Amino acid sequence: MSVRLSLFPENDKFQEECAVFGVWNVADAAAITALGLHALQHRGQEASGIVSYDGHKFSSHRGLGLVGDVFHDPRVMAALPGSCAVGHNRYSTTGDTLLRNVQPLFAEFEFGGLAVAHNGNLTNAHAIRRALIRRGCLFQSTTDTEVFIHLIAISLYATVEDRLIDALKQVQGAYSLVVMSRDCVMGVRDPLGVRPLVLGRLPGATDDATGWVLSSESCGLDIVGAEFVRDVEPGEVVIIDKSGVRSVRPFAPERPRFCVFEYIYFARPDSVLDGVAVYDARKQIGVELARESAVEADVVVPVPDSGVPSAMGYSQESGIPFELGIIRNHYVGRTFIEPTDQIRNLGVRMKHSPNKPVLEGKRVILVDDSIVRGTTSRKIVDMVRAAGAAEVHLRISSPPTKHSCFYGIDTPERSKLLAAQHDLPKMAELLGVDSLAFISFDGLYRALGHEKRDATRSRYCDACFTGDYPIKLVDHDAECGVGTA
Amino acid sequence: MSVRLSLFPENDKFQEECAVFGVWNVADAAAITALGLHALQHRGQEASGIVSYDGHKFSSHRGLGLVGDVFHDPRVMAALPGSCAVGHNRYSTTGDTLLRNVQPLFAEFEFGGLAVAHNGNLTNAHAIRRALIRRGCLFQSTTDTEVFIHLIAISLYATVEDRLIDALKQVQGAYSLVVMSRDCVMGVRDPLGVRPLVLGRLPGATDDATGWVLSSESCGLDIVGAEFVRDVEPGEVVIIDKSGVRSVRPFAPERPRFCVFEYIYFARPDSVLDGVAVYDARKQIGVELARESAVEADVVVPVPDSGVPSAMGYSQESGIPFELGIIRNHYVGRTFIEPTDQIRNLGVRMKHSPNKPVLEGKRVILVDDSIVRGTTSRKIVDMVRAAGAAEVHLRISSPPTKHSCFYGIDTPERSKLLAAQHDLPKMAELLGVDSLAFISFDGLYRALGHEKRDATRSRYCDACFTGDYPIKLVDHDAECGVGTA
Amino acid sequence: MSVRLSLFPENDKFQEECAVFGVWNVADAAAITALGLHALQHRGQEASGIVSYDGHKFSSHRGLGLVGDVFHDPRVMAALPGSCAVGHNRYSTTGDTLLRNVQPLFAEFEFGGLAVAHNGNLTNAHAIRRALIRRGCLFQSTTDTEVFIHLIAISLYATVEDRLIDALKQVQGAYSLVVMSRDCVMGVRDPLGVRPLVLGRLPGATDDATGWVLSSESCGLDIVGAEFVRDVEPGEVVIIDKSGVRSVRPFAPERPRFCVFEYIYFARPDSVLDGVAVYDARKQIGVELARESAVEADVVVPVPDSGVPSAMGYSQESGIPFELGIIRNHYVGRTFIEPTDQIRNLGVRMKHSPNKPVLEGKRVILVDDSIVRGTTSRKIVDMVRAAGAAEVHLRISSPPTKHSCFYGIDTPERSKLLAAQHDLPKMAELLGVDSLAFISFDGLYRALGHEKRDATRSRYCDACFTGDYPIKLVDHDAECGVGTA
Amino acid sequence: MSVRLSLFPENDKFQEECAVFGVWNVADAAAITALGLHALQHRGQEASGIVSYDGHKFSSHRGLGLVGDVFHDPRVMAALPGSCAVGHNRYSTTGDTLLRNVQPLFAEFEFGGLAVAHNGNLTNAHAIRRALIRRGCLFQSTTDTEVFIHLIAISLYATVEDRLIDALKQVQGAYSLVVMSRDCVMGVRDPLGVRPLVLGRLPGATDDATGWVLSSESCGLDIVGAEFVRDVEPGEVVIIDKSGVRSVRPFAPERPRFCVFEYIYFARPDSVLDGVAVYDARKQIGVELARESAVEADVVVPVPDSGVPSAMGYSQESGIPFELGIIRNHYVGRTFIEPTDQIRNLGVRMKHSPNKPVLEGKRVILVDDSIVRGTTSRKIVDMVRAAGAAEVHLRISSPPTKHSCFYGIDTPERSKLLAAQHDLPKMAELLGVDSLAFISFDGLYRALGHEKRDATRSRYCDACFTGDYPIKLVDHDAECGVGTA
Repeated sequence: MSVRLSLFPENDKFQEECAVFGVWNVADAAAITALGLHALQHRGQEASGIVSYDGHKFSSHRGLGLVGDVFHDPRVMAALPGSCAVGHNRYSTTGDTLLRNVQPLFAEFEFGGLAVAHNGNLTNAHAIRRALIRRGCLFQSTTDTEVFIHLIAISLYATVEDRLIDALKQVQGAYSLVVMSRDCVMGVRDPLGVRPLVLGRLPGATDDATGWVLSSESCGLDIVGAEFVRDVEPGEVVIIDKSGVRSVRPFAPERPRFCVFEYIYFARPDSVLDGVAVYDARKQIGVELARESAVEADVVVPVPDSGVPSAMGYSQESGIPFELGIIRNHYVGRTFIEPTDQIRNLGVRMKHSPNKPVLEGKRVILVDDSIVRGTTSRKIVDMVRAAGAAEVHLRISSPPTKHSCFYGIDTPERSKLLAAQHDLPKMAELLGVDSLAFISFDGLYRALGHEKRDATRSRYCDACFTGDYPIKLVDHDAECGVGTA
Repeated sequence: MSVRLSLFPENDKFQEECAVFGVWNVADAAAITALGLHALQHRGQEASGIVSYDGHKFSSHRGLGLVGDVFHDPRVMAALPGSCAVGHNRYSTTGDTLLRNVQPLFAEFEFGGLAVAHNGNLTNAHAIRRALIRRGCLFQSTTDTEVFIHLIAISLYATVEDRLIDALKQVQGAYSLVVMSRDCVMGVRDPLGVRPLVLGRLPGATDDATGWVLSSESCGLDIVGAEFVRDVEPGEVVIIDKSGVRSVRPFAPERPRFCVFEYIYFARPDSVLDGVAVYDARKQIGVELARESAVEADVVVPVPDSGVPSAMGYSQESGIPFELGIIRNHYVGRTFIEPTDQIRNLGVRMKHSPNKPVLEGKRVILVDDSIVRGTTSRKIVDMVRAAGAAEVHLRISSPPTKHSCFYGIDTPERSKLLAAQHDLPKMAELLGVDSLAFISFDGLYRALGHEKRDATRSRYCDACFTGDYPIKLVDHDAECGVGTA
Repeated sequence: MSVRLSLFPENDKFQEECAVFGVWNVADAAAITALGLHALQHRGQEASGIVSYDGHKFSSHRGLGLVGDVFHDPRVMAALPGSCAVGHNRYSTTGDTLLRNVQPLFAEFEFGGLAVAHNGNLTNAHAIRRALIRRGCLFQSTTDTEVFIHLIAISLYATVEDRLIDALKQVQGAYSLVVMSRDCVMGVRDPLGVRPLVLGRLPGATDDATGWVLSSESCGLDIVGAEFVRDVEPGEVVIIDKSGVRSVRPFAPERPRFCVFEYIYFARPDSVLDGVAVYDARKQIGVELARESAVEADVVVPVPDSGVPSAMGYSQESGIPFELGIIRNHYVGRTFIEPTDQIRNLGVRMKHSPNKPVLEGKRVILVDDSIVRGTTSRKIVDMVRAAGAAEVHLRISSPPTKHSCFYGIDTPERSKLLAAQHDLPKMAELLGVDSLAFISFDGLYRALGHEKRDATRSRYCDACFTGDYPIKLVDHDAECGVGTA
Repeated sequence: MSVRLSLFPENDKFQEECAVFGVWNVADAAAITALGLHALQHRGQEASGIVSYDGHKFSSHRGLGLVGDVFHDPRVMAALPGSCAVGHNRYSTTGDTLLRNVQPLFAEFEFGGLAVAHNGNLTNAHAIRRALIRRGCLFQSTTDTEVFIHLIAISLYATVEDRLIDALKQVQGAYSLVVMSRDCVMGVRDPLGVRPLVLGRLPGATDDATGWVLSSESCGLDIVGAEFVRDVEPGEVVIIDKSGVRSVRPFAPERPRFCVFEYIYFARPDSVLDGVAVYDARKQIGVELARESAVEADVVVPVPDSGVPSAMGYSQESGIPFELGIIRNHYVGRTFIEPTDQIRNLGVRMKHSPNKPVLEGKRVILVDDSIVRGTTSRKIVDMVRAAGAAEVHLRISSPPTKHSCFYGIDTPERSKLLAAQHDLPKMAELLGVDSLAFISFDGLYRALGHEKRDATRSRYCDACFTGDYPIKLVDHDAECGVGTA
């Protein structure tokens, strides 16, 4: 079975790892879930899975590849009957794209089957896993999600709901979960609400009850025509069953710390998360960036597609024309030709092409969302210069990314982050730009509707910029010997 | 071997059928060709092929799928040695995506091997095919291109060049050809130059000679870093061999009639064709459209991706803000789930999602490049209204498409073209818009740098709008009984 | 992932479910294992797997299909390094040919990794499984083998050896196991020794120690040139580690009951099992059959391939010439054409063809190893008659099979066994033969070197003929309500 | 598309290249053809194809692999409608297993479609091909069969029948053809009848007409229940159309020279060819061999499967017991593990295993059908010795093969044929046997019912033994400069 080894050969971005989706009491639940996962495809392209339940049995299908590939066979869909379903998209962080790691995970318990889909990362997964193995638990996957499954299996509580809560109390980390048992579909956000999860409504499959939808982002509701009801709240367990929707809050209340990078890059621009429209947020960051880091130039050019809204905001605020100076080729297929030296020297870019007539002789403001290693940025700057740009000014719609993420995002080690190694002038030099600017912390918070960043009461998780990790890194600290003294 | 049955399930566009590419005296010719074909992927996504020549033998590989899929195996590339190559992308018009139809076609002749790649359509292919079969020629494919091959095979002339010209004189139609023999690579455009072909330059594989590149569009030169030299001229045969580049013009000169739809939709925005930058042309059409069909509104929203430049031009001229009110999902994979009635009723769109916060309560000017059957347009309008738009004004950056194309473009029958069946008010009603306007002929020509359209001396082939077919439709007329009296 | 749905579309035989193989301290252990599994291919054709250990890490590969298909890729073999390995062939009994069921099963325990390959069937697997699930154990496969794994995981003993023995004491059934941990390879036969397992010797990978091989049958030793050492004894645990080979016998001694059907049909004719050469046994059964059930005839014709040795014995004893009157087609490929009514009426046989010149006008003694449902036998008899045979006398080298097997053999329900439903004359009538005879119990035991069958002290498990089940059918009895009063 | 690179890794045999099959006026013609090809699978395992005709259109499917794999999909069979069909199995001789070489070849002519399936080899194919290319014909495959197609295409005769005869008169070589046009199915054998072809009868699809079957061997008739009518005669063209079966003999009569190796090895034992039952012939060769080359021994052991009937004849004549001393493993799958040195040294054999108890301490007469390079024979002799044989006497049921075949059989170059390089004592030494004997020419002819071989009037083509080539080797002689003086 061949795998898309590298769908994005030139991608130098933080990568959202997963999307979750769930449906209760909706006709064609699996098809609805497939559509939702398709809308959430940007949150994971390596593998996809759906488990459905028809009141009698659970059915599942999982595969490697895009949602449209995994579920394109009508026989596959026909084999997923029922009005309840959960689904999952996966972006593999470690290369171990094994089918057994593809979610939703499913297991038969004493109380019946249970399917669990998880977006996020547990910071004490290794510690718990070790304890469970010592107890005689056998792990089949290398995913954090299986930790939940075992904790539920060995819980001494009677109901699924109580067992899940029992499990939640033992884990730390960032997680949005969608869980389906014979009796209910449940949605959970971790106490800080780091990862998103929204609740929507559809006509019910049975007349007397509403249909419900859980989705990582609101764009997953839109594609199936579901009405947005509300965000699942940080620390909330939403339980949907025959008696309707109810809510349990098993944790002590904490100040929410939603992931600010969801606004900057991860989420789809047409989503609204925790009350903020992503597209508006990105445009507004561009506006703030223009105010903070003005420079004389002829054109504002986005690095497509993620840099487009901020570039529009920058252009609008600065009055400098917005132009598509870089064209993105979306037909990427699988890993491409092994480059020979000749081709490497040509500086070939599979995804981005310069629109020469727009760039030639111009002073160009290039707008991108972030700089991770800097490798792609350097290639793009070179490409723009080769196309004849007179000056290149790089504007970044996030602060410098200086720290790794441990909450469900695929990030390089700190030592590979350009901003963790170099100061601004050195970065500008390495990237080959005439000027370089990042949005300030206060600018970023202003764009999101706050006065400024208050270090003591930060509204968001911005650990990748600040190193201020709101959830304890249990496994990581243990490995590094932190706190063992 | 499974095939992407329908990469664009919702696509209601005219479709360019093919791209051609050729390389003479360049190191890693096959890899260069694969890159060129990748940049030309928008001109054909169903199949791809390369034939290379290393001075001793011809090697070939052809497959169904995207360029990146067909050529991703390093062993495939290693089996295509040499410094000369021709390549081809195919968009199948008739569903007969057989491997034997995938170009370049190759045959062994008395004088050695010959590879032919063809973009376009012959209007007398059936008539010639019948005559050749009567003579004892055996056809292996259903492509027009094979007609060239047989005409060359039975020509009584001695050299490849003379045999090719002998063949060209017998065919009518629109064609850009790239041909490779043991001795030369040749590029040809039909006498009217309906389809594009450009010539570029690269460092030669051998020190004493330049390397040359032929490509359907200039973006195929850019990706490999080739210097643009010039367009191949209408009716010109460019012959590249050891003695350099020379030119033969076997036809009586005629007024060129380049396909105007290349500017409107087919070509990539970063290409420059016959001296006009495609991106500029599209923006300028938007400007003209805003002048001709102004309307009070809150936002200008493009139908992505093709409507973006015209929408930018419209916004710039009208002063109404440009906003990304529709988000395009590029992760499409293969044909998707068979929709159930439930899902059909949801009006699900796999490729386009509404950006609700941008559309809600707004008077929206929607800019698209063309209306073919109108099916997709209607769905998009409905989607925009469902997202809360107060008004929808549709602006189209081409004149009404009322006629089929017989020059290499996949078009529905005339009876299925919305504009061939209905007048403007009826179309507006059927599409459900508050107002509808197309660019005028004169507006279109102005945007391309002309004063206006002169019906007696038209600079472009615009038969799909006007029915003024510049090349005789021999086969079509014979079928319809035209001119047989 | 496509599966050979039915490799033997016309097969109406009892089917051995599995083969096991293990290697300790031999160079290229995985390749040796693949060869051994290839020699044992007759014991399972649906799936195959190998786990190897190189002193540092465990590596595994499993796949559906023949050994030669699953392991033909050199990269697959290269990814199985080490001088220890265990392997498994699987014949799926229930159609659930899921990859997760393909053995060897592997799990990470507190004490490190453990790979388990199992041939046989546990008669109390369901009971134990239910208890384990109640305890919080999560089952990933539907195989009995996983029961071993969980019992080992939760055992309170410290060493792998003690934990394995702890597990063995809790299960009942027929099993030959090969188990590999970081420290040792172990071979186990159940207390009655129902399924076979032999021990062999090869040059060691390291100079100071011997290499050891465990194999379901001795033919698995022959193919790799291993010297036969001895059968693993019933109830014996053979432990191979750095200090050599040692033996543990954790069970009270019982009279062995080796499966007599291994001699009749399952084992390969070149194997020697429990001291008896299979080929000799089969020939001798033919001899006994000729003595017991003589009939005047012109030719003795085997149903190939399994009937050949008995037919040779029959011919030799009776003096009637042995002839290949039926030809077997070994090129079967995958499931074949859906037969239309026309083809069904033709009585088409994919595997067997009549050799007309041998059969025409002859009185034929047909020798086969067993009759299960009788469907294939009837077709073969009809075929022989249609080829012109004057008489057909069917001789069977086993007693009538009247009972299902619960010890690792795929058998139909009792109600489908011809001999369970009908007496001899009725069977002869249903099969359309002129006479029908089975070997007698005493004849069978004589052929195997015993005086006769002693019902109170039977040397073999012959439950499928006698209904005398030597191991308690815990799950089966529970389902049927046996013994619950 | 993956290919069985080498289905028979240890095979050192002459290989029949092809099988042909044709059906006229029979319901489910394509399914009948698939079954016939399955029965003829021994004549070609690399690829298979069927073209059917339903009175309106031709349909075709071709693929690489076994018949059961190529045609196992019911949709494939459903897409081959009609009551007429031709089919072909292919064994590739040169490794160019390209799909375009897979037969039946099909082309559209002026007079309609024509499908051609060919078993054999033309000895002047290159000469004709060159002339045709000079005339402007384009070749798509590298098969001889395409020469027929082009000669038919350019023939000036009006009817298909006359055009085919026109083509036949221009070619030399060995060929059995099955040809299907809109009007008829035709079967042809070359003037000497080197390759076999038989005619059979089935119930017609329409009431008023018989159904007819053409097959390379009679076993292809047996599997579909067709009645054997007669061999197509050497030099005969059998034409089956609406008016029934008629015969044309376009060539001057010659003494037939049927390939004697068909009796020795190629044909299936249950076939009857040119009036001789293959199985009887093989047994009788064994009898003659026993008379000619008696030796004291304990057992006669065949090299399975092809050596079995001769070994039976040898045993019967000599009175020495026939025993299965070598077991063949039919589960071969694809190319197997790359052998390491360790494994090479083990002398591993994938297909043959020694049956030790039969061989140990015995004087063994080993019977095989032929020796080509001698590589496999040597391995088998070594294996038998390693199993403990006291003596090994090798008896071969064909004369020494000293010459290549140019009539459709895959043979090594002469320099690689053991018997072409060495005399009998040296061969015995190289093979490591105690004695070696081949059947004599007269013995071979006696076994086939003749008095002896008359060199001036030989009844068979035995060129591979004698070098007496009955059909001129036009291409071969031209390459070697023979006859150019």
